[in-house]
Amino acid sequence: MITLASDFGTPYPAVMKGVLRQRTDARLVDVAHDFPRQDVRTAAFWLREVLPYFPPATHLVVVDPGVGTDRDAIVVRAGDHTLVGPDNGVLLPAARRLAGDTGRLESFLIDEAGLDPVEPTTDQSNPNSHSQHPPQGRSNTFHGRDVFAPAAAAVHDVDSATLESLAWLEPTTVDVDLELPTPTFEDERAIGEVLAVDGFGNVITNVPGSALEGRERVRANGESVPVGETFAAVPVGERLATVGSHGYVELDVNQGRGDDAFGLEPGDRVVLEPVSGGDS
Amino acid sequence: MITLASDFGTPYPAVMKGVLRQRTDARLVDVAHDFPRQDVRTAAFWLREVLPYFPPATHLVVVDPGVGTDRDAIVVRAGDHTLVGPDNGVLLPAARRLAGDTGRLESFLIDEAGLDPVEPTTDQSNPNSHSQHPPQGRSNTFHGRDVFAPAAAAVHDVDSATLESLAWLEPTTVDVDLELPTPTFEDERAIGEVLAVDGFGNVITNVPGSALEGRERVRANGESVPVGETFAAVPVGERLATVGSHGYVELDVNQGRGDDAFGLEPGDRVVLEPVSGGDS
Amino acid sequence: MITLASDFGTPYPAVMKGVLRQRTDARLVDVAHDFPRQDVRTAAFWLREVLPYFPPATHLVVVDPGVGTDRDAIVVRAGDHTLVGPDNGVLLPAARRLAGDTGRLESFLIDEAGLDPVEPTTDQSNPNSHSQHPPQGRSNTFHGRDVFAPAAAAVHDVDSATLESLAWLEPTTVDVDLELPTPTFEDERAIGEVLAVDGFGNVITNVPGSALEGRERVRANGESVPVGETFAAVPVGERLATVGSHGYVELDVNQGRGDDAFGLEPGDRVVLEPVSGGDS
Repeated sequence: MITLASDFGTPYPAVMKGVLRQRTDARLVDVAHDFPRQDVRTAAFWLREVLPYFPPATHLVVVDPGVGTDRDAIVVRAGDHTLVGPDNGVLLPAARRLAGDTGRLESFLIDEAGLDPVEPTTDQSNPNSHSQHPPQGRSNTFHGRDVFAPAAAAVHDVDSATLESLAWLEPTTVDVDLELPTPTFEDERAIGEVLAVDGFGNVITNVPGSALEGRERVRANGESVPVGETFAAVPVGERLATVGSHGYVELDVNQGRGDDAFGLEPGDRVVLEPVSGGDS
Repeated sequence: MITLASDFGTPYPAVMKGVLRQRTDARLVDVAHDFPRQDVRTAAFWLREVLPYFPPATHLVVVDPGVGTDRDAIVVRAGDHTLVGPDNGVLLPAARRLAGDTGRLESFLIDEAGLDPVEPTTDQSNPNSHSQHPPQGRSNTFHGRDVFAPAAAAVHDVDSATLESLAWLEPTTVDVDLELPTPTFEDERAIGEVLAVDGFGNVITNVPGSALEGRERVRANGESVPVGETFAAVPVGERLATVGSHGYVELDVNQGRGDDAFGLEPGDRVVLEPVSGGDS
Repeated sequence: MITLASDFGTPYPAVMKGVLRQRTDARLVDVAHDFPRQDVRTAAFWLREVLPYFPPATHLVVVDPGVGTDRDAIVVRAGDHTLVGPDNGVLLPAARRLAGDTGRLESFLIDEAGLDPVEPTTDQSNPNSHSQHPPQGRSNTFHGRDVFAPAAAAVHDVDSATLESLAWLEPTTVDVDLELPTPTFEDERAIGEVLAVDGFGNVITNVPGSALEGRERVRANGESVPVGETFAAVPVGERLATVGSHGYVELDVNQGRGDDAFGLEPGDRVVLEPVSGGDS
């Protein structure tokens, strides 16, 4: 199985699927292709939360603002999983989690020249058609097609334990080892950050859900809101703090958008405090 | 085959696919993940119109504003199909149609405690990582992942005729038996309702297409518009009434948006009348 | 393998998948379902750029503003590929490229009456349910479901070399042989057109990338911009001209939207000229 994740929208992911289908019989599963464009951190967060639910697989990830520069193309072996993508940090938070208790986390540099070049069908009778394709068979703007998909197909078709058998891979140390921010705690106060806002408008913070344990209300950036176990703990349209499905504190609205109601977006600071005596 | 439908957007459907892939080899087919959020009725309508075109399958449906409350999780056997989702009515209109002439329509309550818990790969060496996952393995906000996907995988892998063999299912009566609204007729007048607006802006009513038979024009909420067999029966940008692909009267614009032109949205009342002598 | 492309959004593509699944075991791969609605030219462009990366396949394409009119439904055999869709030009640019150096490019008219009708499961006990389906089994507004999907399933399941064995296909000449516009050249000046804007906002022209060879800057519609090999050749937020992954000149912004910055949209004229001495 190969999963695909990108910030491409459409139809570029289909080009990667065509290249994959030329080279492998693997099942293909889309993770998402609407990650915020060029936003490495948000993609890294979602991949860390989504990929651990998959069985061992090859994960093709292309959120790549540095495409065509000297940033490396890498393969990361993480436990029984393999990730393929740019060396800009996007793979690492997921890889650390996928390593699980195996502790196996190794990176390999892709030698692009060692990959079989992508060869689309071309109208040979039309000289125009020829001139429209880059002579090298590798563009500077679409490595998802020209590097990462070919690499993912090849990686998928060997046992992940034998990546060393691929001549175009060599052990490396990653250049960018992204760590998602972690909260700090002062007494009963948690100072965290918004990691992401999901499609429902739920504001996902990096504060562990345990921060809400035993509390009926919490003060979030100064405003007191009820703590609920479910969205429906408050009336429709009302705000609440809850433990989201990822295990983090979320600031939500029952059947509404938490980001609008709390005025928060990814990267914003979130302070969670106990409500004091005078609060209600 | 398992079909998936939700109001999740991305990337949450991929989490369900990961869980399914852990447990079954079934083909996965997306129906839609952009149903209007928490809108049970609209999802129920689309499922009724889409699912009958599939061969016998398991249909995983998560539009679930009551997630985490005491609403039940159910499985419905409908003819040769099986549906899995919340007991909020979303499954029923489709189920009645899928029952077809078999008349087989039976509901089962899911005992969540009987399902194998979902176990994502977790970084064991990182105590933080542990604390970020709900201890019970079942969240209060994402039953698509924790209940419905595991149930759908298990249901898929037994013959639908032998659901009784699953110990965590017991026969039940549904709590919410949603019926989509039906029109009323007075002489030559049909009083109906907008069931949905599709992505093209076509306004889909609940009035059967037969209401347009033999008519060249019809009065829709007071305004006379031509009846056409195809969108192209009127010039580009002009309004018409036609029989949509579902068999209902639609109020459309040729290559434009009927919802804007008619000022209609789901739930709005639609009165269709013959044009009188003085109309043109 | 059957690829699917349309301007349907959701959930109509799922209806086509249901019909396909009733009839064939083929792999299904989505190309895109968010092509601009009723925009034959844009869809034709993207299909020409995307489909050549696929191995031999059946390509089901429905961008069909003339649905229900007397426009024909056709099958085009192009090299080892087969395309199925309306005779409105949408298939032809891709077909010419897929023909490759085989020179094999043949069209067939679909006799709709020869296809097995689509039969959704229907609630027989409900007289209402019956009346909601068009009696003929073929709508005037959704040939993707009623004509093209059944044809694609049947075409897929014969060898593409033996399409002649299908009684409901007969050789034909297409009515609409769409050619995408080509640029003209005057000395060192290229006069082209915007073919498409992708999801990143990159403005894709029809001018071959060779027009930028050996240049450090270029004048685009009067404004001098740097020529870069990669987006990152200019600072974030700055404009550049580059050779896109399709081999054409693109007018882009590094990590921003070229369409906004250049004020260009599909169909707009683009003049590329050398920068003169006084430019910088």
